[in-house]
Amino acid sequence: MSEPSARPLEAPPAERRRRSFAWHDPIAAARAGRQLSGLDYLRAILAGSVPAPPIMATLGFGLAELEAGRAVFTCTPQEFHYNPFASVHGGLAATMIDSATACAVLSLCPIGQSMTTLELKVSFVRPITVESGALRCEGRIVHAGRRVATAEARILDGAARLCAHGAATCLFVPLAE
Amino acid sequence: MSEPSARPLEAPPAERRRRSFAWHDPIAAARAGRQLSGLDYLRAILAGSVPAPPIMATLGFGLAELEAGRAVFTCTPQEFHYNPFASVHGGLAATMIDSATACAVLSLCPIGQSMTTLELKVSFVRPITVESGALRCEGRIVHAGRRVATAEARILDGAARLCAHGAATCLFVPLAE
Amino acid sequence: MSEPSARPLEAPPAERRRRSFAWHDPIAAARAGRQLSGLDYLRAILAGSVPAPPIMATLGFGLAELEAGRAVFTCTPQEFHYNPFASVHGGLAATMIDSATACAVLSLCPIGQSMTTLELKVSFVRPITVESGALRCEGRIVHAGRRVATAEARILDGAARLCAHGAATCLFVPLAE
Amino acid sequence: MSEPSARPLEAPPAERRRRSFAWHDPIAAARAGRQLSGLDYLRAILAGSVPAPPIMATLGFGLAELEAGRAVFTCTPQEFHYNPFASVHGGLAATMIDSATACAVLSLCPIGQSMTTLELKVSFVRPITVESGALRCEGRIVHAGRRVATAEARILDGAARLCAHGAATCLFVPLAE
Repeated sequence: MSEPSARPLEAPPAERRRRSFAWHDPIAAARAGRQLSGLDYLRAILAGSVPAPPIMATLGFGLAELEAGRAVFTCTPQEFHYNPFASVHGGLAATMIDSATACAVLSLCPIGQSMTTLELKVSFVRPITVESGALRCEGRIVHAGRRVATAEARILDGAARLCAHGAATCLFVPLAE
Repeated sequence: MSEPSARPLEAPPAERRRRSFAWHDPIAAARAGRQLSGLDYLRAILAGSVPAPPIMATLGFGLAELEAGRAVFTCTPQEFHYNPFASVHGGLAATMIDSATACAVLSLCPIGQSMTTLELKVSFVRPITVESGALRCEGRIVHAGRRVATAEARILDGAARLCAHGAATCLFVPLAE
Repeated sequence: MSEPSARPLEAPPAERRRRSFAWHDPIAAARAGRQLSGLDYLRAILAGSVPAPPIMATLGFGLAELEAGRAVFTCTPQEFHYNPFASVHGGLAATMIDSATACAVLSLCPIGQSMTTLELKVSFVRPITVESGALRCEGRIVHAGRRVATAEARILDGAARLCAHGAATCLFVPLAE
Repeated sequence: MSEPSARPLEAPPAERRRRSFAWHDPIAAARAGRQLSGLDYLRAILAGSVPAPPIMATLGFGLAELEAGRAVFTCTPQEFHYNPFASVHGGLAATMIDSATACAVLSLCPIGQSMTTLELKVSFVRPITVESGALRCEGRIVHAGRRVATAEARILDGAARLCAHGAATCLFVPLAE
């Protein structure tokens, strides 16, 4: 199979786009979070009194709603989310579902306990593009045991059509002193 | 549960970090890709003759190696990947595994055929931080049938320790004229 | 590590249990099914006018309710389902969830179309034993597209407690002439 | 949609098949197992000095090879494994993969520790029938941490063709006194 000839397909300079974003020290925020319950830590992020984690700035998504056992994230798909197929990369949906399921579980943790996601499963059922409108990803607890919790999440587009759904298995872990 | 008092935990302005990145029109690249086999399209991205998709610029990862049925992505974890727990968000590993499995499958597509990922499963076995060093995510075909292919991928850190692994189910789809 | 000495732990003969079961030719039933829609085929099994597939006799579970996009299977856990840990083997829950999700999808197939399950994911959240009472596994469509459908299922025990849940990805396939 | 008319498709009595099988008290075996390491317990089952769990008799599969971190199960597909589509029900592959991954993990447990499977994922890549020949399902550890282990398994048919593959997430649990 021959190599494609040199750069015949390169986009012209005019096509170049640029974005800039900012975030805060995530270590300081995480340290603050250790003194709070999971729900209070997430509430502080929602209220802006603790800075949101950098990944939210990087990908342009945010926490929108929160209660015990339930978390909603929103995101407006943009060109900088695109994969090589002219649609949003599956990693955005995976990141939102990971966040929504993890926060649904974290919201159940008392002070001194945290959680970690062991595994995540995502089904992609509708392509997401810049025309999808604002995405809404709602995560909910399915089962919370003593050591392990499962949660599921769904992503709807601006027309309330299902784009992706998934589930996660999380482990409760004691916070080290 | 009382609301946390107003912004007592906010990071001082000095903690603010900023990043800027650039990308090219992904629609033009995708259009060019439709005239190539999957392997040639990915080779063109690897060679830089077709611009890499925007998600790679956004998250700072890239295609590093490629052959039929196998693709390797690399990424150096940075603070802008962080979650609320002072480590890299699981979405980065999910995005890399999604990319590596999808490209392993795409590399098998002749001209006129593309693929779409139906579902992705990721296991997180070791936290990733800025101290993990350069991540290497290798995806490989497990089974390629006539309509469906499965692929798996593993992410190793700079010390070759397994951080995450996963698998995807992909559907081959004919490119519309 | 030494080999355990010869058969010191063997159960006495008195502990031996025996079970016998019967089934019908599954090929004849499947052939009959090819002339029916998915919903009618399953209705015929539910009504007993087409013999249930052998796996149901082998594991002692059955189809209990059916409508378009939804199927319910029931099973009473018994000792012959047990694993080496004195509880029901996870394979029973997996089999029921596979059946419930597949039949939810099959129920949407018109004459001339069938389906195949590409992948199945099961979460085990509560041990099942002979004291669990009758299990009820309800499967429901999550998304039905043109080529692919996803479905999910939950297993409740006799006290309506969640024991397992899962999801499947299915592919619609045309029946060959 | 009209109900199918009464029993027009019923298989004639001549088509009826019957099978009988036997097993031993699984509670006694499990109790014996609590005094052994996971590897010794499985070795005792392999050697026949502890009775195999009932599910193996029910579905007609067995443990064939074992070492620390690796377990192989075998099974000859038979008509009593069939689903409504004239092939082996996916539950058989799921059960074998569940067993092979669980035993790969159990084989690492010292005396006083056991394991439980949190979730199982199975990909079905080739139909299994009575013509597949003897199935071989090999499970291997992917990652074993302090609290959690992941394992994967593949099922090959008699011609060494891949039929199914999957992975599981398992939790190590201390045995209660």
